[in-house]
Amino acid sequence: MNEEDTISTADLCAHLASKDSFAKLLGIELVEASEGRSTMRMTVRDDHLNINGSCNGAVMFALADCAFGIACNSYGILATGIDVHMTFQAGAMPGDVLSATATEVSRSRRLSVYRIDVTRADGTYIAGFTGTAYITGKPNYSPPQG
Amino acid sequence: MNEEDTISTADLCAHLASKDSFAKLLGIELVEASEGRSTMRMTVRDDHLNINGSCNGAVMFALADCAFGIACNSYGILATGIDVHMTFQAGAMPGDVLSATATEVSRSRRLSVYRIDVTRADGTYIAGFTGTAYITGKPNYSPPQG
Amino acid sequence: MNEEDTISTADLCAHLASKDSFAKLLGIELVEASEGRSTMRMTVRDDHLNINGSCNGAVMFALADCAFGIACNSYGILATGIDVHMTFQAGAMPGDVLSATATEVSRSRRLSVYRIDVTRADGTYIAGFTGTAYITGKPNYSPPQG
Amino acid sequence: MNEEDTISTADLCAHLASKDSFAKLLGIELVEASEGRSTMRMTVRDDHLNINGSCNGAVMFALADCAFGIACNSYGILATGIDVHMTFQAGAMPGDVLSATATEVSRSRRLSVYRIDVTRADGTYIAGFTGTAYITGKPNYSPPQG
Repeated sequence: MNEEDTISTADLCAHLASKDSFAKLLGIELVEASEGRSTMRMTVRDDHLNINGSCNGAVMFALADCAFGIACNSYGILATGIDVHMTFQAGAMPGDVLSATATEVSRSRRLSVYRIDVTRADGTYIAGFTGTAYITGKPNYSPPQG
Repeated sequence: MNEEDTISTADLCAHLASKDSFAKLLGIELVEASEGRSTMRMTVRDDHLNINGSCNGAVMFALADCAFGIACNSYGILATGIDVHMTFQAGAMPGDVLSATATEVSRSRRLSVYRIDVTRADGTYIAGFTGTAYITGKPNYSPPQG
Repeated sequence: MNEEDTISTADLCAHLASKDSFAKLLGIELVEASEGRSTMRMTVRDDHLNINGSCNGAVMFALADCAFGIACNSYGILATGIDVHMTFQAGAMPGDVLSATATEVSRSRRLSVYRIDVTRADGTYIAGFTGTAYITGKPNYSPPQG
Repeated sequence: MNEEDTISTADLCAHLASKDSFAKLLGIELVEASEGRSTMRMTVRDDHLNINGSCNGAVMFALADCAFGIACNSYGILATGIDVHMTFQAGAMPGDVLSATATEVSRSRRLSVYRIDVTRADGTYIAGFTGTAYITGKPNYSPPQG
């Protein structure tokens, strides 16, 4: 492998995040990432609301799931979520900025587990997420051909 | 209460579904609903994809969560999801039609539990969801003022 | 392989259940099993109670988990639980007979998912369980050497 | 209320733990507890094993669930688990000492959420648990009558 074929973890994660069409649709952005960690951010919009006029739980899920996806793919090996659990603690309204931070609980050859905390900019704890990923063993990045 | 103040379960659910901005953004539609049950449907679009080019798990979650939300609110009392668990069994590609059907496992004064099955139009089982809702006791519908 | 080396699914499951020391400690018994399915049963005892004087949730969990373990190991390949979710709907008292029935949601080469329903003899729904197992690929039974 | 009717959090938790018959059957002991927190400990025994000869996942669950139960009841108000999720990361063998520590994620009037980490004495992460409790509003302790 030539030197130009290598990619830093931060660049890999930025590349992966840029390929997530659904994250783009929702306005979810990567804040930072390193091996086994990531933080994503979004601002609650009018088209994110539920039947009750507050932020849809599925939007909070999408934010947490993005952080999970980047963290479990940060090693350059394709990993896919197989199992997720989420608790909802507080609501959010249009204009609120939400952040999700993923931290690695464990990682073996085939399985990894992450916890994701979702918070509002004022520090309020919004939701907790636990995700298990299956590590396929295939690379999740192909260096551009020269 | 006047006769015109009453609303059928089907009409209530259609009304609630129509107020869900996020479901609209994703193209999620109500197929049918009755007390404690609902079915939602959507077609996978290009802006629903993940970093791997297949349907984002958060889109499947949103579909299942909508079915959960309508089913647990079908009695006219506002209920909010507090806890969800989801397993991901198979993928979906753009153009695939996905359905989510919610069935009631239990319902007490303050808590109700639902299971939601997500399937592809070809019958493939895509994902399983279990959701617990807290029943607030407040109505989730106000009849229009005459 | 000689004919005497083969074992029926029912016999395999009975053999596996007989090796579970913790199930024995709790009085959990196998009722029936077939490929991807099993039913276990137990009677709530005084040493199964919690701080509130009713059946400990961890006892209900153990019963459901046994049904899960037998069902996911019923193919003769060692599978281990990696992820479980459980909801608790109703209580149980000493003398109550509880049953747990596991049914297979999905099974691929490496992962399988089961749902387990726990009920009281009077038909009351007690608890719901979802479990994901990792299929190791190794046999879980060695025929006795002749 | 007389002064002798009050009880410290540590004494309340010790009292509650002493009433848990199932914890006693398994050899689970309270190490320490304060408001919203608790640590429990046990040594893996031969009658804790599964069909594979290692510590049964339901024993790890029981340990974590005890820590959850003490933490969510530490305020003197009866709370009952309604929803739990657990991931299993590593095994344990007879003689291993396991600890479970519960920390509070959130607490409102009717619901509280806890995360419990289960570790081996050598520091290995064994299992992660998330539990949601319903707060009944009734006291979980009656001072002895004089």
